[in-house]
Amino acid sequence: MKFIKDPVHGYVEVPESLLPLLDSPPVQRLRHIRQLGFSYLVYPGANHTRFEHALGAVHLARLMCSHLALDQSDVNLATAAALLHDVGHGPFSHTTEPLMREWSGRGHDDIGPFLASGPLAGPLEAACLDPREVAAVIGGTHPLSPLIHGDLDVDRMDYLQRDAHYTGVPYGTVDAPRLIKSCILEPEGMVIDENGINAAESLLIARTLMRPAVYYHHVSRIASSMLLLALQEHREEGGAGAADNLLATDDAGLLQALARSRSATARELAGRLTLRRLYKRAVYVGGDRVNPQALQSDLSLRKMRRLGMEIAEMAGRSPAEVIVDIPPVPADIMTAVRVQYGGTTSRLEDLSPLVHTLNRTRRVQWRMGIYAVPEAVPDVARAATEVLHVKRATTQDRLVVD
Amino acid sequence: MKFIKDPVHGYVEVPESLLPLLDSPPVQRLRHIRQLGFSYLVYPGANHTRFEHALGAVHLARLMCSHLALDQSDVNLATAAALLHDVGHGPFSHTTEPLMREWSGRGHDDIGPFLASGPLAGPLEAACLDPREVAAVIGGTHPLSPLIHGDLDVDRMDYLQRDAHYTGVPYGTVDAPRLIKSCILEPEGMVIDENGINAAESLLIARTLMRPAVYYHHVSRIASSMLLLALQEHREEGGAGAADNLLATDDAGLLQALARSRSATARELAGRLTLRRLYKRAVYVGGDRVNPQALQSDLSLRKMRRLGMEIAEMAGRSPAEVIVDIPPVPADIMTAVRVQYGGTTSRLEDLSPLVHTLNRTRRVQWRMGIYAVPEAVPDVARAATEVLHVKRATTQDRLVVD
Amino acid sequence: MKFIKDPVHGYVEVPESLLPLLDSPPVQRLRHIRQLGFSYLVYPGANHTRFEHALGAVHLARLMCSHLALDQSDVNLATAAALLHDVGHGPFSHTTEPLMREWSGRGHDDIGPFLASGPLAGPLEAACLDPREVAAVIGGTHPLSPLIHGDLDVDRMDYLQRDAHYTGVPYGTVDAPRLIKSCILEPEGMVIDENGINAAESLLIARTLMRPAVYYHHVSRIASSMLLLALQEHREEGGAGAADNLLATDDAGLLQALARSRSATARELAGRLTLRRLYKRAVYVGGDRVNPQALQSDLSLRKMRRLGMEIAEMAGRSPAEVIVDIPPVPADIMTAVRVQYGGTTSRLEDLSPLVHTLNRTRRVQWRMGIYAVPEAVPDVARAATEVLHVKRATTQDRLVVD
Amino acid sequence: MKFIKDPVHGYVEVPESLLPLLDSPPVQRLRHIRQLGFSYLVYPGANHTRFEHALGAVHLARLMCSHLALDQSDVNLATAAALLHDVGHGPFSHTTEPLMREWSGRGHDDIGPFLASGPLAGPLEAACLDPREVAAVIGGTHPLSPLIHGDLDVDRMDYLQRDAHYTGVPYGTVDAPRLIKSCILEPEGMVIDENGINAAESLLIARTLMRPAVYYHHVSRIASSMLLLALQEHREEGGAGAADNLLATDDAGLLQALARSRSATARELAGRLTLRRLYKRAVYVGGDRVNPQALQSDLSLRKMRRLGMEIAEMAGRSPAEVIVDIPPVPADIMTAVRVQYGGTTSRLEDLSPLVHTLNRTRRVQWRMGIYAVPEAVPDVARAATEVLHVKRATTQDRLVVD
Repeated sequence: MKFIKDPVHGYVEVPESLLPLLDSPPVQRLRHIRQLGFSYLVYPGANHTRFEHALGAVHLARLMCSHLALDQSDVNLATAAALLHDVGHGPFSHTTEPLMREWSGRGHDDIGPFLASGPLAGPLEAACLDPREVAAVIGGTHPLSPLIHGDLDVDRMDYLQRDAHYTGVPYGTVDAPRLIKSCILEPEGMVIDENGINAAESLLIARTLMRPAVYYHHVSRIASSMLLLALQEHREEGGAGAADNLLATDDAGLLQALARSRSATARELAGRLTLRRLYKRAVYVGGDRVNPQALQSDLSLRKMRRLGMEIAEMAGRSPAEVIVDIPPVPADIMTAVRVQYGGTTSRLEDLSPLVHTLNRTRRVQWRMGIYAVPEAVPDVARAATEVLHVKRATTQDRLVVD
Repeated sequence: MKFIKDPVHGYVEVPESLLPLLDSPPVQRLRHIRQLGFSYLVYPGANHTRFEHALGAVHLARLMCSHLALDQSDVNLATAAALLHDVGHGPFSHTTEPLMREWSGRGHDDIGPFLASGPLAGPLEAACLDPREVAAVIGGTHPLSPLIHGDLDVDRMDYLQRDAHYTGVPYGTVDAPRLIKSCILEPEGMVIDENGINAAESLLIARTLMRPAVYYHHVSRIASSMLLLALQEHREEGGAGAADNLLATDDAGLLQALARSRSATARELAGRLTLRRLYKRAVYVGGDRVNPQALQSDLSLRKMRRLGMEIAEMAGRSPAEVIVDIPPVPADIMTAVRVQYGGTTSRLEDLSPLVHTLNRTRRVQWRMGIYAVPEAVPDVARAATEVLHVKRATTQDRLVVD
Repeated sequence: MKFIKDPVHGYVEVPESLLPLLDSPPVQRLRHIRQLGFSYLVYPGANHTRFEHALGAVHLARLMCSHLALDQSDVNLATAAALLHDVGHGPFSHTTEPLMREWSGRGHDDIGPFLASGPLAGPLEAACLDPREVAAVIGGTHPLSPLIHGDLDVDRMDYLQRDAHYTGVPYGTVDAPRLIKSCILEPEGMVIDENGINAAESLLIARTLMRPAVYYHHVSRIASSMLLLALQEHREEGGAGAADNLLATDDAGLLQALARSRSATARELAGRLTLRRLYKRAVYVGGDRVNPQALQSDLSLRKMRRLGMEIAEMAGRSPAEVIVDIPPVPADIMTAVRVQYGGTTSRLEDLSPLVHTLNRTRRVQWRMGIYAVPEAVPDVARAATEVLHVKRATTQDRLVVD
Repeated sequence: MKFIKDPVHGYVEVPESLLPLLDSPPVQRLRHIRQLGFSYLVYPGANHTRFEHALGAVHLARLMCSHLALDQSDVNLATAAALLHDVGHGPFSHTTEPLMREWSGRGHDDIGPFLASGPLAGPLEAACLDPREVAAVIGGTHPLSPLIHGDLDVDRMDYLQRDAHYTGVPYGTVDAPRLIKSCILEPEGMVIDENGINAAESLLIARTLMRPAVYYHHVSRIASSMLLLALQEHREEGGAGAADNLLATDDAGLLQALARSRSATARELAGRLTLRRLYKRAVYVGGDRVNPQALQSDLSLRKMRRLGMEIAEMAGRSPAEVIVDIPPVPADIMTAVRVQYGGTTSRLEDLSPLVHTLNRTRRVQWRMGIYAVPEAVPDVARAATEVLHVKRATTQDRLVVD
């Protein structure tokens, strides 16, 4: 058993059998990928990495397995999945996910082939673990998946606390021990008992409060959008290496590749990101002033790029000086949390009015941003308002978003 | 300037001019009144007192005054009001408030006469403070009242953090510095600017999450109900002193007076409270199984006592072995928080779906309890169900409470 | 298993078998005895009680037992001892210990007869525990005693963290998990391995830093001295009840007994303690200006009282207006911590220069105080200087104390 | 005023006048330099950077200036110095300092020329600050230097707390507000009053406890030694760019330069550092088994390299497989902290036995390490013992180090 000091959980104990996985290059690589992408440009303490988050997930997975009294082979599987659940992330974590998805058609938790044939195949075999089974747990298709990949999983319990510890934003407090003690693993998913209702409510609300304050903070969105533009330009100029193989590089490696790109735009943007010379918001509006559903039909990175170029042309700026950022409208979720209460099983959102409004809250928090080099902001604001049919601000209907 | 160490705020600085108030008997008495009444019977760490809470309120009031750039006389007034805002509490804080209200017609923040003619009159005069003005700030009728007595006041900012620190329940986190920095004091009340929306949402939600977990925890309700019964019995047997003059006694003083009461019931209950031999829940139901509005017409301590005796008789128990606890249905509140945003002023609940559902959440959290000595629980449950027309539990309509 | 929320350890789990002990009057009484006596008059947050400390000790004892892989009967014994280790404390914890020792000849951990024949005898028998064996663990004469009663025991690991949490003084940080993981229980006592050296050093130093800041803070010493004087006077006037039976009363009960004493002095002092109208320091000097060893020959409460009366007479004050407080010179301790390191076992103080100086530090921290009603301070200072041969302050030899 | 969230201090306020400095490339570069070099290989949370430490130093400097009631121009100077005090650090902070010193003859706080003519010259002029004066404050030769560059400066108050927050090691707790409130700035340096003694003791001890646990942890020393070897080899093979201009690169930039070096050794070592494939300790001994003074005569990186090659040859390994790490013997320090107490000024170490032994403790903590590729450890251990005259371990004289 290896004991690793962790500021969130005190100590994390890693069983001997996981050490070859812990020492493998794909897991060590996570030391160089920030958990929160560019949030460190807003919250200077947010340099924590996917590596320590993976350790925290292992810690909570062990507590969960012990509470559920799983047998040893399930414990091995669940803790290995906790350790590996984020090896499929590109640099800057979720920042690069849209590109990875567009280029490869896969998300960060769709890692079956990577586990089966990459550098983890050997360590997995040594640990008597089947790569397909580990990938299934991570991907959400295994009976143990609710521990790692669900609404109340160890992934979330860890990152909410961890993000709060490093940003200093006090919304991510989670009573993980209480929640774990209330969990019941059933064939159709994780159920909590009555004693966990408060803790579950609190976790789901914490997650919602963290969205505008941290996860969707506009400065972080701007930097992310700049990186995605740089990567696209880099690729169009024949940039290979890091940009095409995002799972083999890390935060700093990607910025360096862009800094040496053949694309002048990529080089310029990489320099700006390094020195925090960011674009500014020309337009930043919610669902009261544009129609998210309309904007999102056929939405792709390519389409956003085209819109940006159209706006730039109308504003008399060069194409790379304008970026359009239309995030997906949050899908309705969280209907999966169920509670055993008074002899029956209910959906948590039927018991808790606060949880019931989380989906609506997420839609209210949605923002579209048009970002531009600072000197172009007024011109771009005018052009974007026209191109994207942004309504004038009124006080009446401002937040009627449904 | 006196520096006092505080585990929540680090250090509290108390200006020289407030020291006579700080050293006065009514403020020192707060050292012996627990902030959370009987919550220490659930959360063993919850022994914190109104005294340290008053210091915390002074600390935040000073930050708020500094942010609002108030002039010196307003600062004196506001900080004195913060220090004194809870001297009107009886023993065990809110626990005894219903009795005080029934016996005297006054609540804990209606302290004009007490300030004007009691032991604080001298120190107030020495500090050049008008007792009526201080009472007006505390009572909610002064332009400075929003600092002390509002939805986002220093009272709440302090107690939510403090209650979290001492109970260990992680829901009371409040970003007080951010909230204070966003405050604008206007003639019609406190307004926050756009930067404070997250922090204000978070505070109001924290308060709501703390209600079932701490403030309305059933063990705390049971102990409170036992104390109120003991006090009523004590008074009927001619008990004077502590019971009639709640502002002159404290937690331990009241329990000791009851332990020496002429009423055997009062003595028995005081002994039970001291040794944590508590009554148990015979019935504990929400608005899905009884009609809160019907129950509350003409509700009074006297009426609840009568219902308790009726149930006891039907169950074949002696009258003091059954207690009926029908808390007030939470009134709709929180419409007062207003936000300056995009050039206009809106109500926070119009901007925030989560805040919008707080009133509904508070109604869902409402519970009626019938408590009895442990050996009588089954009989009392049957009798109470009949007397109070408690519906059978169903799974369909369980939490349709509006 | 009962889960109890604790702000220091998160949750404390109490096994079913200990519940009768937990619910017994002597343990519930600890809810009303402050861990730090009168420290709440300096640190307003220091209202934490021996009850929650006992729970914390149970928590750490369970971790320790699990690390040491003790068998179930030893685990039962050790956790019961952790829960009960402080039931022998009088009101205000260590404050009343000198009187208890003088009146009964016993200290707070000498509780064999109390366990064998008092209200705990039944619950102990129900839990299949031998009272003599539990008393032996607590008293330091059992092979398991090092867990509860040693230099690195769970008692200390808990109280240092707990006192820091409630006072806000940041010196009591202890890495309990690391320390526990390094412990080896040997026939001749507890030994730590090399990995625990840092944590052990840190604990011993934390304890030393907390002494002047908290445990021996002069305001706390003054209040304690006032209580002891009140108790002595109360007894001389025939005061029985609480004063003679300190194990049957608690903090508030003792103050109330004194407030109703036949002794006017006891009543006056009880009133002063309640309202924090404390005596002040007339003389407060260390070993550089008086001779601690000389002062302590034949030292007793009686002798200190005589010295106080002598000083009062010379100063023209009434006897109760002067109190002499000569604490014991700290005995050299801490030679018991041993370390397995490089194949041999050494004393920690031979490995660590910092630990080596702790004994000397404790002697430097020693202070004698003469306290008086504020208006008498100058006269009492002069008289005490003469009676007790206090040397004039010099800069040369000030802290040569050995 | 710009408010920046900080997990250690809550919020840091940066005055408008400092924003051009904050936004300058040399300060933004600090975002990419870890505060603790390679400690993140031991403590996975230790990814915090010199950037946030600089903000923390600004925060404390502002508190200190306010307490000392400095005039506005001194406040500007002191806060600018706090912000800039670490811009002279190379990648991985102190790790590269020996090389910078050997190559340039300058340490990280000797930054006069850099401030006067580099990219900060413009922003400094815009802020009406004289680069020479700022450099003097940082370098220790200005009347305001004790705020930034002394034994109780804001640099230390910040980093001890910050390192504790991110590593999770609980020894770095510092009562900064109390310490600041006790500071008196005198012409001959910073003096504290009596009320700050505890806090000052605690800070100096915290620093000492953090040394073996964090700052001199052997894994961190090993990685640092590997980096220095890689840099030396890179330079000998004509490596320019990053290696020669350490102030223009950062952590990741340096590792990437080494990964592309013409030197195979540099490339190999950079790969090992990235994947945490570290050398192991072949020899690791203190002053009881070697003679630190003898080892250090004429000590240089070059000499250590020669010794490493000699050992490698004797062990039959290639030269780059062995590294000799002989840290400087800690110089006696801390005689500068002075205390106003009882009318005179004394040295803190004369008042505090614990502080008195800090110098000795630092010598006891000293360790020499010989590191090797894992497979060569036994052979290298034998050879190194012979070449460096390492005494056999005994139990008698083990820690007689003076």
